[in-house]
Amino acid sequence: MEIERNILGKNDGLARTNRRRLAEKGIFALNLVSSPGSGKTTLLCRAIEDLKARLPIAVIEGDQQTSNDADRIRATGVTAIQVNTGKGCHLDASMVGHALDELDPAENALLFIENVGNLVCPSAFDLGEAHKVVVLSVTEGEDKPLKYPDMFAASDLMLLTKADLLPHLDFDVAACIAAARKVNPRLEVMTVSAKSGEGLDGFYAWIETRAKLAAES
Amino acid sequence: MEIERNILGKNDGLARTNRRRLAEKGIFALNLVSSPGSGKTTLLCRAIEDLKARLPIAVIEGDQQTSNDADRIRATGVTAIQVNTGKGCHLDASMVGHALDELDPAENALLFIENVGNLVCPSAFDLGEAHKVVVLSVTEGEDKPLKYPDMFAASDLMLLTKADLLPHLDFDVAACIAAARKVNPRLEVMTVSAKSGEGLDGFYAWIETRAKLAAES
Repeated sequence: MEIERNILGKNDGLARTNRRRLAEKGIFALNLVSSPGSGKTTLLCRAIEDLKARLPIAVIEGDQQTSNDADRIRATGVTAIQVNTGKGCHLDASMVGHALDELDPAENALLFIENVGNLVCPSAFDLGEAHKVVVLSVTEGEDKPLKYPDMFAASDLMLLTKADLLPHLDFDVAACIAAARKVNPRLEVMTVSAKSGEGLDGFYAWIETRAKLAAES
Repeated sequence: MEIERNILGKNDGLARTNRRRLAEKGIFALNLVSSPGSGKTTLLCRAIEDLKARLPIAVIEGDQQTSNDADRIRATGVTAIQVNTGKGCHLDASMVGHALDELDPAENALLFIENVGNLVCPSAFDLGEAHKVVVLSVTEGEDKPLKYPDMFAASDLMLLTKADLLPHLDFDVAACIAAARKVNPRLEVMTVSAKSGEGLDGFYAWIETRAKLAAES
């Protein structure tokens, strides 16, 4: 326990440094957390296509291995850096600090940090982001927020992805939202599909509102 | 790193104790590992219904919180114990040892251990099982074995679940299997659906063959 506290304490200090550094350049950072395969990268590629004409965007991609995701993001024309964690199960503030050195996002940019696919461990690690956004696909089951509560408690927004598959599934959207709100009553929720585009305007409006609020504070 | 080695060393000792204990009673144990929401519990409920007339079955369920999964398993009529790991991101051999004390499976039983939903951390922890079985749903993306290689390297069988959804997805089964075999050339693979029953006879035959081999060794 002592060791865990030391690791988290050191991480929190580095996260504060990242947060100050991002604020100085007016960069709005979102930390996307989820299980593997929830559709984070597909969602990001679509969001980038839809938003890149409006504002500068940069991406930090976390995975144990491969640069597949950064390659997919770069294909949209924005800058992206892949961080491979090897045996590690989450990004930490130190990795993000080094990635920022290299990435050097533009002033007033939107920075997406796509964490390692893991619904458990990334919840405890502040990276210096403005908000954690938990991504849950509708193929995963309604009770996930109750079974993995830490991540849903740590997040400000839940995106229910792959909504285009709902007609083929026995997934109860209302039950899932109720489970998430039981863990975190102030959690905002949006149901989206990167394939059909459903719900994405709401997500983009949320980003713009929250970025404005962050810039004013 | 030293700390990590000590933790793993202690776990391996306890896993050997579990393995010896299981062998003495002729119990065949499978450790099911995957992301959250891959369909492990649904698959287990179906497998138990199909197999329970043929042999004694017991289940250890791992989750951070809730006893939802053990409740679902008990509804099939077999004994199940829920282990809640709290902040913990994986089962370890000590938790399984204590669960075995309480569960006390019958001689020659089939023991399913459903790990915490996490495609990263459980790969490093031997629980005393005969085999790790990695469960990947066809909604998760073909490149998961390359991005999270440790789990696929540690497993002997990959079950590709939710095959009934394939007509609604752009999922390339052959590419996924190729990715998995790149990480682990001796990995066996089966495509199954707990909903339609597709592929389950192959999985049951695999269990019976492997249990026989384990009993003879």
